[in-house]
Amino acid sequence: MAVVMETLPGFRDFYPTECAARNALFTAWREVARRFHFLEFDSPILEPLELFTEKSGEEIREQLFTFEDRGGRKVALRPETTPSLVRLIGTRAASLKKPIKWFNITENFRYERPQKGRLRSFYQFNVDIVGEDSYSAEAELIALAIESFSIFGLSRQHFYVRLSDRQIWVLWLKALGIGESSLQLGLLNVLDKWERRERKDLEKDVSHCLPPAANVQEFLIRAEKLRQSSTLQEIRGCFDALNPNDALKEAVDQRLLTWEKLLAELDALQCGSFVQMDLGIVRGLAYYTGFVFEVFEASLDGRALAGGGRYDLLFEKLTGHSLPAVGFAVGDVTLVDILQKYRLLPKVTFSLDCFVIFENSTRKQALQDVGHLRQNGLSVTYALGESTVSKQFKKAFEYNPNFILFYGSDELSNNQVQVKHVTTHNVALVEREKLANFVCNYTTGSKRE
Amino acid sequence: MAVVMETLPGFRDFYPTECAARNALFTAWREVARRFHFLEFDSPILEPLELFTEKSGEEIREQLFTFEDRGGRKVALRPETTPSLVRLIGTRAASLKKPIKWFNITENFRYERPQKGRLRSFYQFNVDIVGEDSYSAEAELIALAIESFSIFGLSRQHFYVRLSDRQIWVLWLKALGIGESSLQLGLLNVLDKWERRERKDLEKDVSHCLPPAANVQEFLIRAEKLRQSSTLQEIRGCFDALNPNDALKEAVDQRLLTWEKLLAELDALQCGSFVQMDLGIVRGLAYYTGFVFEVFEASLDGRALAGGGRYDLLFEKLTGHSLPAVGFAVGDVTLVDILQKYRLLPKVTFSLDCFVIFENSTRKQALQDVGHLRQNGLSVTYALGESTVSKQFKKAFEYNPNFILFYGSDELSNNQVQVKHVTTHNVALVEREKLANFVCNYTTGSKRE
Repeated sequence: MAVVMETLPGFRDFYPTECAARNALFTAWREVARRFHFLEFDSPILEPLELFTEKSGEEIREQLFTFEDRGGRKVALRPETTPSLVRLIGTRAASLKKPIKWFNITENFRYERPQKGRLRSFYQFNVDIVGEDSYSAEAELIALAIESFSIFGLSRQHFYVRLSDRQIWVLWLKALGIGESSLQLGLLNVLDKWERRERKDLEKDVSHCLPPAANVQEFLIRAEKLRQSSTLQEIRGCFDALNPNDALKEAVDQRLLTWEKLLAELDALQCGSFVQMDLGIVRGLAYYTGFVFEVFEASLDGRALAGGGRYDLLFEKLTGHSLPAVGFAVGDVTLVDILQKYRLLPKVTFSLDCFVIFENSTRKQALQDVGHLRQNGLSVTYALGESTVSKQFKKAFEYNPNFILFYGSDELSNNQVQVKHVTTHNVALVEREKLANFVCNYTTGSKRE
Repeated sequence: MAVVMETLPGFRDFYPTECAARNALFTAWREVARRFHFLEFDSPILEPLELFTEKSGEEIREQLFTFEDRGGRKVALRPETTPSLVRLIGTRAASLKKPIKWFNITENFRYERPQKGRLRSFYQFNVDIVGEDSYSAEAELIALAIESFSIFGLSRQHFYVRLSDRQIWVLWLKALGIGESSLQLGLLNVLDKWERRERKDLEKDVSHCLPPAANVQEFLIRAEKLRQSSTLQEIRGCFDALNPNDALKEAVDQRLLTWEKLLAELDALQCGSFVQMDLGIVRGLAYYTGFVFEVFEASLDGRALAGGGRYDLLFEKLTGHSLPAVGFAVGDVTLVDILQKYRLLPKVTFSLDCFVIFENSTRKQALQDVGHLRQNGLSVTYALGESTVSKQFKKAFEYNPNFILFYGSDELSNNQVQVKHVTTHNVALVEREKLANFVCNYTTGSKRE
């Protein structure tokens, strides 16, 4: 007797109730995508290793499930789906109508220490707009991100969006005289970890990245001020204090104008109240180039529920086709946590239209009708095997069907069947030919989904 | 520039049209399961290696995608789902209501040579009844298998079911004096490959498995006769010719009675015309213990489309809980092939309810209504970025929406929007507050799915 009675750590079995709950998330995500007219695509769970090593950040690379297949190919289970999206779109870049609005629902794999909110296998709703460089793509995507939470009944009291901008940070670093992109990237990474670091560790991080002559303390104070800005005016103030040259000043003005338009667009889309300027958000991945955002739980111990941003250079880097892009992803694990917390998990029901009961002598006719009712789209079951009528009735009530159909030989000699509507206890004698109609009409608008 | 522009061999990208077609299969499978009241479960794609080596046949073991994870665990991508089903049910064997009627839709992985009808990653619809030893479980399952093809419009002229029985073969081997189960299993494997082998290879195979004194030619002739039996009477004849002892005769009688009941039950369920007795079917996997069946394409070069059977000993072997079981699986690749052949692939449409067009001055109001319409369940899109009205109209027609909504500043000053029903060219002026209602009511029963 072999007993492999457990999944791998960080992986999940889904019994019917849990599977229905998971599928309800997927159904809601697909519904949101439909309303915003995004089309679903998919790509393999197993991919050539290089697809991910070329693009993903260091952290993801260290968490890959990777191995050699029987043909000696280096392969990996997907930790994310963006590289595959880039392949699909890159392959048909010329023929696809822009903007490309696509989504998928993926199982992703990361070898992390399993803990609250983190598993080694998890599901993601990934949404991208490719081929559109306007701020209005960000607005559309953030509106969709908000809808993908509010569709479950979550509202502003439960979550909000922290909106930031890597371009502002890059302009600010330039105003500080830090023009080299590798230095910029290093400092963006420091800024990304800011909230989680002690002051003295931050000093160390910053001094590693700044030019030798720079004043670390001054950098920290100025950066904190920009991080804390909550209006465009405050951002402008942070720049003015650095006396930028005219070209830089013009670039900042342009960027703040784009911010204004984006905020107005979000207001128009009725998302304004959800969105909070927060330059503390930087996002870890190196490929973001503009606006970035995270959806956050609104409670004090709030965690990130989703994140995304603009990545205008990745397509060119990976495929040679220059295509601006913006995308975001939400995971199932933290979503289920917050839905549970506020008792907003979609309700799971396994509705059954008919349970059919028969005598030995009426088995044949009863099963004929079972086939007929099912072909009419009704869900029907009966007791397998050969059992007494009383046992069948006992079983029927365990299933809590909408209707119990009893094939007594007396009624059947008149071509009739006893139909009991379980919740009302109403009983009717119905001709066999009219069963499907009777049940469907009885059910429409009340019982059937 | 890194170019990883291809999937691994035997894996597939799904562009929106292909993804929608795949999802249409899944939707149809779920609909069949709902009608028969089977509940969906799921289990990880990655499992401990031993889960599969303990149970799966040799062929599957050689085709595993298997590796060591970062924690040194031997793991494998699932080649099939039955071992995981056994774990889920075995873990809660006592508390689950019997019979357990479960299904799942899985991505499975086998390292085979990619060819027509075979890929390295494919999807399966897996359906099982656990905890019921009556023939009526087989009947229910075969009826469901048939429905999972006929729901697409396939009928008896396209496919049929070959029904066989490992118990008959075991009884027949006993009647030949072959009682040892390892010999029996060897000969069942030979019978499984019968159709694909040359006569002289068959002779060799059989002589390897038979006791030294046995007459190979006689075995082949008698086996062929049983293989060709198409009635219960002919099966009985095959046994009578061997002069079985009384106990064996009684066992054969019992079994043929069960056959009679199963065939009658299939008739009652209106499946009789689909089912053909065919003892040539044995099924490769070692764990089948009773009735086995395959769904076959009806054309001359017909291929197996699905298969299954009873496996009453597997639960006991793997979990210690004795639970009779019967199951089957259908794959997506051969199904799509036959649906394509008969032009029965579900039609794919990406319906769009509204395309919204606005002037610069009406952008805000238009986008407000976009949000409102979407919250009312309508699918809505508009041109991202800032473009002229005529460019927006051009784009709108590319999308083929049901309605085009035009926010002209004149109409809007009267709080009205121009709504054009695209197929009829009807145009109406509609008040903003009544837009959702207008579109929903116009659409109900005609355009919306």
